[in-house]
Amino acid sequence: MEEKFIPDIVVGRLPVYLRALQQMARDGRTVTSSQELGERLGISAAQIRKDLSQFGEFGKQGTGYQIDYLVEQLRDILNVKQVWEVAVVGAGDIGNALARYQGFANRGFVVKMILDNNPELIGTAVGDFVVEDSASLVEKIRSAGIKVAMLAVPADQAQEVADKLIEANVGAILNYAPISLNVPNSIQVQYIDPVIHLQRMTYYLEQA
Amino acid sequence: MEEKFIPDIVVGRLPVYLRALQQMARDGRTVTSSQELGERLGISAAQIRKDLSQFGEFGKQGTGYQIDYLVEQLRDILNVKQVWEVAVVGAGDIGNALARYQGFANRGFVVKMILDNNPELIGTAVGDFVVEDSASLVEKIRSAGIKVAMLAVPADQAQEVADKLIEANVGAILNYAPISLNVPNSIQVQYIDPVIHLQRMTYYLEQA
Repeated sequence: MEEKFIPDIVVGRLPVYLRALQQMARDGRTVTSSQELGERLGISAAQIRKDLSQFGEFGKQGTGYQIDYLVEQLRDILNVKQVWEVAVVGAGDIGNALARYQGFANRGFVVKMILDNNPELIGTAVGDFVVEDSASLVEKIRSAGIKVAMLAVPADQAQEVADKLIEANVGAILNYAPISLNVPNSIQVQYIDPVIHLQRMTYYLEQA
Repeated sequence: MEEKFIPDIVVGRLPVYLRALQQMARDGRTVTSSQELGERLGISAAQIRKDLSQFGEFGKQGTGYQIDYLVEQLRDILNVKQVWEVAVVGAGDIGNALARYQGFANRGFVVKMILDNNPELIGTAVGDFVVEDSASLVEKIRSAGIKVAMLAVPADQAQEVADKLIEANVGAILNYAPISLNVPNSIQVQYIDPVIHLQRMTYYLEQA
């Protein structure tokens, strides 16, 4: 792909398009349209066409999009034709669920290790993994060449662990701890905090 | 609050501001500024001032924001001065983690029940709960007056369960199933799919 500045909000919609297109492909579909995709996703067809046009010409006027082709293009754009190995830090309930999550398969990610600093958890089995000691997190992650981490430690430990992940050359952190991290601009961070999403919805609800 | 159209993207930032302000309050702080908040969150001070000004005048030029006051205002705006009871549907790993999650306390939400359709899970203990049979989901949720649900069922069951939640008068669904839901415009839906966030980050990473 040519290097071109794409607003992050557009980038953020591409995985949603990809997920829907892959679902259509699993359903045996071969062709779709921006109208159909838009109805399925609650996004306007015009928005979808505009977003995709930033990256090239993927559909022909009147004939729609070839699903398999568009899936491959989006996988290429999002760098998920390769499989990224992921480290899960924190072996509590959330880390546990992440290490055992079946939803990463075929979407570009595979959990490679799970670490914790709790002596009672180190050495225990979580899914197909044995919990490793996070005391040697930097060495383990760096030597494995892992660039993506999911952070599922308590909020008061999250910044410290994030600093170590960056020291280990991790470039992308998915943070489940309910706290904003301070990281250099070169590091990607995304947040998953259910309360943030819930509060965004209750804004629109009638008070009970 | 007066009724005024606020862009959803602004609404989406308010919970992030609230979380940071509550953290500052726990740290014993009483006053902050848009500059400090911005640095902590990686958002420009101007953006924060603009967002907050949509709802009123919360700070005085030169003296910053009273943290406790701004926290209370944001809790009011987001309708989380009340505590919302939440139903968790799906008692697999994710539902389990949600039912046991300690992060809802004091943020406006309390899990009230967890349901599943798997006979092997119904009646088992999850944290402080016993998994209930989702066959009677509509009656249970409606009679409990629950308006908020977290959906943690497999993707191929998610739409059907969402339809039942809406029938039960739920107004807000936090969907952990990796699929886009079709719901009426009056229903709030937010999505948590780690792969969506991970792919948004790998877009920016160098391929390995």
